[in-house]
Amino acid sequence: MYRRGWAGSGEGIAEMAVIAARRALARAGVDAADLDAVILANWTQRRYLPDFAPAVAQRLGARRAFAHDLGCACAGFLYGVATARELLRNPRYRRALVVASEQTSRRARPGSRGTLILGDGAGAFVLERAAGDGPGGRLIDYELACDGEHAAIMEITDDGWVHTRIAQRELCELAARSIAEVSGRLLARNRRALDDVTWVIPHSGTAGVQAAIVRALAVPAGRILTNYAEVGNVSSASIPVALDHLVARGRIRPGDVVLSAAVGGGWYAAAALYTVGELAREVAA
Amino acid sequence: MYRRGWAGSGEGIAEMAVIAARRALARAGVDAADLDAVILANWTQRRYLPDFAPAVAQRLGARRAFAHDLGCACAGFLYGVATARELLRNPRYRRALVVASEQTSRRARPGSRGTLILGDGAGAFVLERAAGDGPGGRLIDYELACDGEHAAIMEITDDGWVHTRIAQRELCELAARSIAEVSGRLLARNRRALDDVTWVIPHSGTAGVQAAIVRALAVPAGRILTNYAEVGNVSSASIPVALDHLVARGRIRPGDVVLSAAVGGGWYAAAALYTVGELAREVAA
Repeated sequence: MYRRGWAGSGEGIAEMAVIAARRALARAGVDAADLDAVILANWTQRRYLPDFAPAVAQRLGARRAFAHDLGCACAGFLYGVATARELLRNPRYRRALVVASEQTSRRARPGSRGTLILGDGAGAFVLERAAGDGPGGRLIDYELACDGEHAAIMEITDDGWVHTRIAQRELCELAARSIAEVSGRLLARNRRALDDVTWVIPHSGTAGVQAAIVRALAVPAGRILTNYAEVGNVSSASIPVALDHLVARGRIRPGDVVLSAAVGGGWYAAAALYTVGELAREVAA
Repeated sequence: MYRRGWAGSGEGIAEMAVIAARRALARAGVDAADLDAVILANWTQRRYLPDFAPAVAQRLGARRAFAHDLGCACAGFLYGVATARELLRNPRYRRALVVASEQTSRRARPGSRGTLILGDGAGAFVLERAAGDGPGGRLIDYELACDGEHAAIMEITDDGWVHTRIAQRELCELAARSIAEVSGRLLARNRRALDDVTWVIPHSGTAGVQAAIVRALAVPAGRILTNYAEVGNVSSASIPVALDHLVARGRIRPGDVVLSAAVGGGWYAAAALYTVGELAREVAA
């Protein structure tokens, strides 16, 4: 299951999202009918109308949930988690599903370097407002940022393909700097140091971005985990897919403290700090 | 200023959003640098990458705000208001800007009926968390819903134009039923009746939709206000543009209780209940 793949012709954003969402619901032991909100992160196959999220909610049987799409490029999953977290402050909501579903293969110019590293994938998590400590992990806090000054450095033009307007090296440095900034603010606000974090699970991006993150955060490379080598760059789905993968393999364990951070064309940056829960109901891969 | 218009070649979604946002910031007496979040509702001119919101935030000088786009068709402004409202429950956020900017003219097939009623427009409001009653209006509550079962009834196909798959009469009935449902739930939860509402300011849609809403809500037609006759159907911008218009003209007044409701292809439905504030700093139109 964990291999780089490109979606087939019958597999759209909604179909992939539904598979990932069912897996997340089973893992969390939550019935789709009890969801209050469904947030779908996707930028690789957007439509003007309709959004994908209402159809995903309907196929899941999330009858009383409202639903909407989010773009935010590769930072979409973390932006979605933040949105869900704030929704759950409202006492009338209790459970939200955040699913990222991307077909990056559609945005790579044939023959470009992107075709070598991009993958299609979907990952999802359920967030639930809980009174005390339950078996689930806990979202400690998050930090979001954006900088429209860099809006033009990554663009999809009318041909539908990604065009990067700055040198790869500069892009890696900007990514590393942005991740260091949001992560630093997040950790400082929560009075934690990077040494208190068991693992860093960033949006995988490219190998160059990963190396730049290692330098920028000054953490041992062995504490940074991704499954980039297996699935490629699956954009906003990279963090939930990696988490699912790493928990299923026992690589990360209940109680571990994780810092996840992502950047994306826009320019977006986002980070989340959380503990890993007992995914006792983990379904077979 | 209040006339149906189609944007010129130099006027994009971001440019229109910036004009509306500056107007809202001046009206609220808020400095863009003090915004924590910028949410941009737009579906008529979406791009894969980058979103418009980070560029809008940057042009406004909203240096510490995070920003993202929302689709949600004609319900985008109310979905954005709901998202902003929940963000503001977090004590570290205080002010959010919600701006809807649409160029429906780009989605109307030349020669179609749509060209007769669609308009381009942008409208914006600032939401601020306040301890007591200030000069601003107050968002009492909102209600969101969606129904993916009707996802296929309105679609933009590869030609970029809106295609409606059901009869106009059925669409009007569905719109009216959806608006009655979300409005009914919203009013009931807040122990209010339609008689307690001074004005209903719905997403204007079409004349047919408006007539259906009048029937469905069973309110006198004179209590339903839009500026559809002047600006046409400006999609998600219709509610903020109408509000701005009606307040500037003195048609609605401080203390009035307003119910706004919208539907959109997806299928989306949303409603908000609020009081009108003193827009003392209303800028010249």
